[in-house]
Amino acid sequence: MFTGLSAFPLTPVTDRGIDEEAFAGLVERLGAAGVDSITALGSTGSYPYLDRAERARATRRAVEHSGTTPVIVGIGSMRTRDVLELAEDAQEAGASGVLLAPVSYQALTEDEVFGLYEDVTAELSVPLVVYDNPGTTHVTFTDDLYARIAELPHVTSIKIPGVPADPAAAAERVSALRALLPSVTIGVSGDPLAATGLNAGCHAWYSVVAGTLPEPALAITRAAEAGDAAGATAASQRLQPLWELFGRHGSLRVVSAIAEILGLVGRPNLPRPLRPLSDDDRAEVARVVRQLDLR
Amino acid sequence: MFTGLSAFPLTPVTDRGIDEEAFAGLVERLGAAGVDSITALGSTGSYPYLDRAERARATRRAVEHSGTTPVIVGIGSMRTRDVLELAEDAQEAGASGVLLAPVSYQALTEDEVFGLYEDVTAELSVPLVVYDNPGTTHVTFTDDLYARIAELPHVTSIKIPGVPADPAAAAERVSALRALLPSVTIGVSGDPLAATGLNAGCHAWYSVVAGTLPEPALAITRAAEAGDAAGATAASQRLQPLWELFGRHGSLRVVSAIAEILGLVGRPNLPRPLRPLSDDDRAEVARVVRQLDLR
Repeated sequence: MFTGLSAFPLTPVTDRGIDEEAFAGLVERLGAAGVDSITALGSTGSYPYLDRAERARATRRAVEHSGTTPVIVGIGSMRTRDVLELAEDAQEAGASGVLLAPVSYQALTEDEVFGLYEDVTAELSVPLVVYDNPGTTHVTFTDDLYARIAELPHVTSIKIPGVPADPAAAAERVSALRALLPSVTIGVSGDPLAATGLNAGCHAWYSVVAGTLPEPALAITRAAEAGDAAGATAASQRLQPLWELFGRHGSLRVVSAIAEILGLVGRPNLPRPLRPLSDDDRAEVARVVRQLDLR
Repeated sequence: MFTGLSAFPLTPVTDRGIDEEAFAGLVERLGAAGVDSITALGSTGSYPYLDRAERARATRRAVEHSGTTPVIVGIGSMRTRDVLELAEDAQEAGASGVLLAPVSYQALTEDEVFGLYEDVTAELSVPLVVYDNPGTTHVTFTDDLYARIAELPHVTSIKIPGVPADPAAAAERVSALRALLPSVTIGVSGDPLAATGLNAGCHAWYSVVAGTLPEPALAITRAAEAGDAAGATAASQRLQPLWELFGRHGSLRVVSAIAEILGLVGRPNLPRPLRPLSDDDRAEVARVVRQLDLR
């Protein structure tokens, strides 16, 4: 469950709240495509914008509609008390694992980040994925902090923010992490370099794009898993126009537009203050969707 | 109300929730000291860690215990929907103004930040302070964005993150902002350079230290207001050991320790994952409190 492809679906939000029907449809699509796990309420699932009741309902929906695919659920929040409640809710709703990012407002010390994971894992019954996402949390994990947290109970995987673009440097980095952290799986994130990460020995890909477009992400993952590094790289390079859009607008706004273009969700589907792409930018996304035959 | 000294009290939090009695005591102390306004639930008041009910209760307490001193209330939250609810609660509880920082998780575009202020001011009845705090929100305001937001209804003041340390450069910067933004007051934050900011022409000081130690902050403010720039600078320089602690540990953890040392709040008083200073660091804070005769 903490290897292979984990797909992060959007949680579509309208003026009236979560569009639960569209969300269930996204989850079903991922189960049918054969991803290895579904991570609901990740950053792509807008977890920090949703309240406890919304997150509990979305978790239940994900578990109900995922078929036999295990569901991991994001439980991050500013305050430890709230994280503990969200962990309880996720487990009660049938989550197979939880994903925890150290969401911050006041800059956290290394001991405070460790303390968060210590407090939460002490109360947990399911496996936990450490979510290192400095672009959104503004927390920087050192390797030493990884190692301290990896020794806590229930910690099973670490979602790293990326790998070096150079394949040799990536292989060196992933080897070092695997040696340092033998008890957990290493999952790459940052979709444009995911093929590089998998080829370098990452056990998993925690993927934004797979939450909306599972097929092209599976092509990359299965090639890398079969030892076909060149095939994985080629399958990723085919998506270069998409990676460029990710770089320009942020992956969330781009997959939000793609899901809407494909008729999977309505528009707008992101919680304000986030806004959909402008009409011009959306038209460019639509051109790339057609050009690459994304569906 | 949006000039002079605005004091930001802690919101002391224990395992059982907000210590409302200690919070009321902090607010009374500020009213009695004669600060020009009290900003409850600012960053120093841990607003992003508290839920809606806690924030409503703290707001009511602040209004009840502030005497004749006006109370401004922080209404920041990740999601616009929640900000609108918090604005409603704050106004219902008798807040004289609100303070809004663009709390972010996904990096916000300039249009999204503007859109947040547009959505919120459209529903507001009281004045709003724009809270530019890039160290916690990770949003960077451009001068152009300041100018767009300052034209929205109800926008009355902008809390800028600091001024250049060089007095001439500070004067130039504040003059430029005052010329660009004639309809609002400019309030400096970043306590160590507050005297420089006030001397440079800032109308207000949005102050962390004043929330716990109003007297030394009033000494700086009243000197600057009287045109005694040298006196304001000297009063700030006297606090240099305190400013060094702020730089080392973050102002929040230091004022939390000071309030506890002075018997104003219990320990711990910050919401986890935030932790109190270590015993060694606390002892150093206690030495500075004695050395500077802070009370």
